[in-house]
Amino acid sequence: MIDAGSVARTLAAIREKRPLVHNITNLVVTNTTANALLALGASPAMVNSTDEVEEFVAISGALVVNVGTVSATQAAAMRLAVRAAQAAGVPWILDPVAVGVLRYRTELARDLLRAHPATIRGNASEILGLEGSQDGAGRGVDATATAQAARPAAERLARATGAVVAVTGAVDYISDGKRTIAVHNGHALMTRVTGMGCTATALIGACLAVQPDRLAATVHGLAFMGVAGEIAAERARGPGSLQLELYDALYRLDEATLAERLRLTE
Amino acid sequence: MIDAGSVARTLAAIREKRPLVHNITNLVVTNTTANALLALGASPAMVNSTDEVEEFVAISGALVVNVGTVSATQAAAMRLAVRAAQAAGVPWILDPVAVGVLRYRTELARDLLRAHPATIRGNASEILGLEGSQDGAGRGVDATATAQAARPAAERLARATGAVVAVTGAVDYISDGKRTIAVHNGHALMTRVTGMGCTATALIGACLAVQPDRLAATVHGLAFMGVAGEIAAERARGPGSLQLELYDALYRLDEATLAERLRLTE
Amino acid sequence: MIDAGSVARTLAAIREKRPLVHNITNLVVTNTTANALLALGASPAMVNSTDEVEEFVAISGALVVNVGTVSATQAAAMRLAVRAAQAAGVPWILDPVAVGVLRYRTELARDLLRAHPATIRGNASEILGLEGSQDGAGRGVDATATAQAARPAAERLARATGAVVAVTGAVDYISDGKRTIAVHNGHALMTRVTGMGCTATALIGACLAVQPDRLAATVHGLAFMGVAGEIAAERARGPGSLQLELYDALYRLDEATLAERLRLTE
Repeated sequence: MIDAGSVARTLAAIREKRPLVHNITNLVVTNTTANALLALGASPAMVNSTDEVEEFVAISGALVVNVGTVSATQAAAMRLAVRAAQAAGVPWILDPVAVGVLRYRTELARDLLRAHPATIRGNASEILGLEGSQDGAGRGVDATATAQAARPAAERLARATGAVVAVTGAVDYISDGKRTIAVHNGHALMTRVTGMGCTATALIGACLAVQPDRLAATVHGLAFMGVAGEIAAERARGPGSLQLELYDALYRLDEATLAERLRLTE
Repeated sequence: MIDAGSVARTLAAIREKRPLVHNITNLVVTNTTANALLALGASPAMVNSTDEVEEFVAISGALVVNVGTVSATQAAAMRLAVRAAQAAGVPWILDPVAVGVLRYRTELARDLLRAHPATIRGNASEILGLEGSQDGAGRGVDATATAQAARPAAERLARATGAVVAVTGAVDYISDGKRTIAVHNGHALMTRVTGMGCTATALIGACLAVQPDRLAATVHGLAFMGVAGEIAAERARGPGSLQLELYDALYRLDEATLAERLRLTE
Repeated sequence: MIDAGSVARTLAAIREKRPLVHNITNLVVTNTTANALLALGASPAMVNSTDEVEEFVAISGALVVNVGTVSATQAAAMRLAVRAAQAAGVPWILDPVAVGVLRYRTELARDLLRAHPATIRGNASEILGLEGSQDGAGRGVDATATAQAARPAAERLARATGAVVAVTGAVDYISDGKRTIAVHNGHALMTRVTGMGCTATALIGACLAVQPDRLAATVHGLAFMGVAGEIAAERARGPGSLQLELYDALYRLDEATLAERLRLTE
């Protein structure tokens, strides 16, 4: 059963176990996703070097791979890390930022899929671009399609890869290829803060480290993001205050708030 | 006519068109300039790799090149990107951080000028260093000369390169080599937040994407920064709160506020 | 005499001289440590390239070396920079993030010690890992041992290297191998914001640039961090607001506040 109660149990597990979450991520969100993970209760680490990623992923609870500012050097580290994660049974999540727009990262992301991510999270353009039925759908980091329009591609991608696929937007859809669950939380002002999608991906990473049911873990991470994000937006006067209120809301998140606010449908 | 009305029209154009602004920038401001661009209404993307910059700049509305933490790898991406921008007719802006202090980046910045930036924005030391009449004027990222003292160098640099040159400080001077316009907004507390000059450069990038008159676009970007910055400083208790208030102020900026606060002279 | 009065004199010297602090640091804290240094009154610069670090360190007041996201390229810059600092008599500080956990950076950090850092600051796991008596004590960037437990290792490391060694935690211990001083300020909420240890290291860097007594400079930097951090935590509703309140508190720090709050023991 995936509901507010199961979300709250995952939150309690993160705060108790403080899982080490290894991030190979983009330069825009290195600080902000570390802070979001810490605020939630996880223990983030950003380790990027080909000299270190294999050693580090083996002691981590989960790995987050985000191609937002990928270079050849970082791509090499990603390839080593995902193979090491697969070998060690460490769940990993792929954030295919701007995949479908830029050839280099599109090929990279498709290649990384061979190491079987537990979850893939992107906006509509990115999921369409990664799935490949509609190449060139996006124009960078912003979704130009709606999440609902990309839901069939997400479901196909889940079946083709064996990963749970989340396509996020005004409503988030999370599918394992058989079931699709929708999270209806969040707020439009979140689109005016950079890296909110990347932050959602990082939070799912923390959930994957403590929750073996990957569909549940992915929904739980997006539930944290959606509920904390809408609380932050209500308190904010603009995107600057939203960003800091988000960390405070993640830090203060509790079972009662989740029960009151979470809106899931299947 | 460059006045509060033309500034407001550029703001409306940015919010309507959401231009894609490609940034090859320094590690200090990757997150903060993305957030400033988003708060204003533009669509930022940070793409750094030699494998991707040419493809990306061709679909962008403007390119921002900032040498603040340049490496040999990033310099190679900058060279590719500015040539691709020139070939595609995409306007680009150069931020010559600490040029005049460090030989490597001084040579790089002078070399990049061959690809004809639309605008160059720096503090007094940087404009003096790039123009070259007074090598070694600065001591890093801080201006040790006043903007007014660098105004003649800015005007010479504009004539020599064909670029609009902005030298920013307590008063900002913007010259195309014939006309020089001064922006008298801003606040001294902004000097205690890192990357405020880089943020101004990024906002000018957004303006260049929607406003073909490069002198106007450069003044408009500095008008956004100066007006939003002084609103933020009035609300702030220190540099930490200033930074977040700046995003909120950019997000809330409107025609009435610009008309009330903007102080331009020619 | 190291007391609130000497801390206040170092603060006044930083604000008067605005020392240039050269940082070769990790991607998580590039922005936040620059902002903390600016808020305190120093002049930060982040220069990473092998083409530039030797030239830049020679004109700097101090160098901060932080291995948090080290790569082979950045390691090469660190090796050049610390040798140049040693040659020019510029004091430098080492932050051995996650040393003891990852072999590559542990070897690097031990090698960098040959260039005689003025100060080494780490958490308990890192100091134990660098000192080497208890390899593998940590699990990443978080301390799993207490600062008090690492105090003997800090004192041994100080005697072995000639550096002042600070091991930070709920209480900070600073030793030159003969004397050990404890700073009892700070707040538990600071552990939920990324890079607070790195920020302490950067602030010590600013102190080393103006205060030739390295034991005093190290205590002073941790006094700024501890006092400003506890003020920020008292004002904050969570880790997001703590981060911005920290900059505001560093900016507003004064002699009266230091005299009232500082708790040092020897």
